[in-house]
Formats: sequence, structure tokens, C-alpha cells
Amino acid sequence: MNFGFLLFPDVEELDFVGPWEIIGMWSKMFDGPEQCLIVSQEGQAVRCAKGLQVKADHSFETCPPLDYLLVPGGQGTRREVDNAELISFVQKQAAGCRQVLSVCTGSFVLQAAGLLQGKRATTYWRSLDLLGKLPGVSVVEERFARDGDIWTAAGVSAGIDLALALIADQAGPETAGKVQLAVEYYPSTKRYGQAHLSPQAPGYLKESK
Amino acid sequence: MNFGFLLFPDVEELDFVGPWEIIGMWSKMFDGPEQCLIVSQEGQAVRCAKGLQVKADHSFETCPPLDYLLVPGGQGTRREVDNAELISFVQKQAAGCRQVLSVCTGSFVLQAAGLLQGKRATTYWRSLDLLGKLPGVSVVEERFARDGDIWTAAGVSAGIDLALALIADQAGPETAGKVQLAVEYYPSTKRYGQAHLSPQAPGYLKESK
Repeated sequence: MNFGFLLFPDVEELDFVGPWEIIGMWSKMFDGPEQCLIVSQEGQAVRCAKGLQVKADHSFETCPPLDYLLVPGGQGTRREVDNAELISFVQKQAAGCRQVLSVCTGSFVLQAAGLLQGKRATTYWRSLDLLGKLPGVSVVEERFARDGDIWTAAGVSAGIDLALALIADQAGPETAGKVQLAVEYYPSTKRYGQAHLSPQAPGYLKESK
Repeated sequence: MNFGFLLFPDVEELDFVGPWEIIGMWSKMFDGPEQCLIVSQEGQAVRCAKGLQVKADHSFETCPPLDYLLVPGGQGTRREVDNAELISFVQKQAAGCRQVLSVCTGSFVLQAAGLLQGKRATTYWRSLDLLGKLPGVSVVEERFARDGDIWTAAGVSAGIDLALALIADQAGPETAGKVQLAVEYYPSTKRYGQAHLSPQAPGYLKESK
């Protein structure tokens, strides 16, 4: 089994490294997918939104068939939704995937590839309205959403929650719990200051007050 | 202001990318440190514990004086605690830093550099006993611990909580809240399966049941 992570310039770091860590722990310690692969269009190293430079394992051309594909978000998605080669890669790989996932504004790439047609999906809180204006998508304000084999997460850090939920679904909750302990993911629930009270805050956050 | 992230082979990915994302958002959006820098011994790209390959911005030689230094953990720390050049780099930089931080088993590097002498500190749950056997450290089972200008986090994902607490301390809780919203860090509190009930689970986890 191959789990691919799609990278492009100005991808947001935690969008993919959060899931990469979770899926990598599943892969290496608890019989998850054999290979976790970083894929970029030409196989080139990518400079991320906050400046981290990450090498790729494969180009679109050399990338083997994927069983899982994760599309992260970040400023770069604004450009990539119009990148015909990248959208074509997502479409071709998705056709053979068990599950396809996005984090943050990676959902706009899935939408551009036609994968959100008639689906419930979510995205970064600041982009919920914009996603809702695109045809075919039913936007929900949840930490993450699953609709069939399409999984979409809210912003940046939400990819960690998404990845654990995927493992629970694919390998069972005990395996997800072992991964959770291995990465010591028992996060603080502290909310600093007043920013989370913004009227633009996502629905799941308001409900959990 | 310069915020340095120390990388070495087999560093754990989320240990540094969690804080990198949080500190990077502070830096770029909310008047945090001007520069966030990845530093490795020879300035070489590093292969992380789960296979991600990351480029460095600086070697030990070219690295400018740092105001903040973060040492992540991972399997590689077992080797690096005996790496005299790396320990010397940490000692020299720490002497000029406002704050020094570790995530996961990065605390063993701080200990080897003499920075945990007489300090309360924490580490990855599986390494708490081992850290407690080293001279000078007073081990606490908290999500993260601060003692003066030394900050230590529990395992892997705990660096995110650490980084937000650092920002709250250095720039105030309103700034930390803005960063928290920007990375949409309102994590799920779900615990999968039974793994978190392990007798070896850290104290803060048992108390929060």
C-alpha cells in the first residue's frame, strides 16, 4: 500500500506534516501502508508557506499508483487549482485510491478535480464561504468531514484529527489509539485570548464552547 | 530576532514542524521573530525519523546568534547526546538566547548540554524514567514545563502546546490566540481505544481522565 502526500510551492507545513507523522507512525510501527511518499510535480524540492524546504520522493511521472492520497492546503492552492497537470494527476490517482483526503484549502484542489461533486466537505474557517459558493459542494463546519471515500479537514492542525480518524476507520480504533499514544496526542484544550470568539469562527468551535 | 530549529538525522518530524508552524505564523502574521531558521551541523539536508527530507538554512558555522533555540527529539537524540560539536553548539547558542526549548527527547540534548541542572523538565512519556535517572533534573509529568528560560515539552505533538504557551508569555495571550485561530488549533479531545489507559501513560493524561 502507498500513501501519497501531494506537495506544491507555498503548501502550508503543518497541513501535511501533521498527517505525515500520524500516518508514518501507523506505517512504521503498526502495520500501516508500506510506503509514505512525498510527490511534487517535477519531483523538485518545495519551499513551503512558512519557508521550510522539503524534498520530494517522486514526480507525477514516477509516482506509483497510490492507495491513499492527501492534498494539503496553503496559499499555493490558489495557483494550483488552475494547474491542469496537477489537477489531472489528482484525478488519475484518485480513481485508483481507496480514500482521498484534503486538509485546509486542499479541499479547493479536490473541488477543481471534480471530487467534491455532491459531497459534504469542509475547509479552513476563513474559506468556508468561498467553498460554499462553488458548484456541487455541501459545506459543513466540522473539524473534519467524511463522505464516502472523500475526507476533508478544517484548517492546518485539523489534519492530525483527520489522520487519526482515517486510521480508526481503516485499521480499527485500537490501532488509532496506539498511534495516538505513540505521538502523545493528548492536546491541551486551552484557548488563548478572545480570537476564538470571532463571528467567523467555524461552527464546531462555537458548539464546543 | 532569530528563532532557530536544530535538526539532525532521525529527528521526529512533528516535534519540530508543529512549533515551526506556530512560530512561523507568529513571525509572518503577528510581529514575531523576523527569522525562523533550520540549522543542521554541516548545513546538510536531513532525513527525519519517518523519512521526510528537509533542507537546512544554516550550518553550525554560518548560523547567526539565536534569540530562541528549539531542540526537537526523535531516535536521533540517542546519538546526538554524544556529539560533542552539536552539544557545544547548543551550549554556545543557549548562552545568548532569551529562551531555550525542547520537544520530546530533545530534553536529553539539553541535559547533555548542562541546561537542565536544577531544573524542572519533562520529555516523551516513554523516556520519563530515563530522564529522571540523569543527574540534576527534576522530572515532571506535564504536557510541558517551564523553569526560568528553559521550556520542555512532552512527546511529539506536545510541541504545539509548548509553542503557543511561549508566544503567550513573550507576546501576550491575545497574540497567542490570534496564532491559535490562524492555525485553527482547536483539537479534538477524542481518545481512541484503550492505549491511553496504559500504566506508563504520563501523569497529566491520567489526571485529565
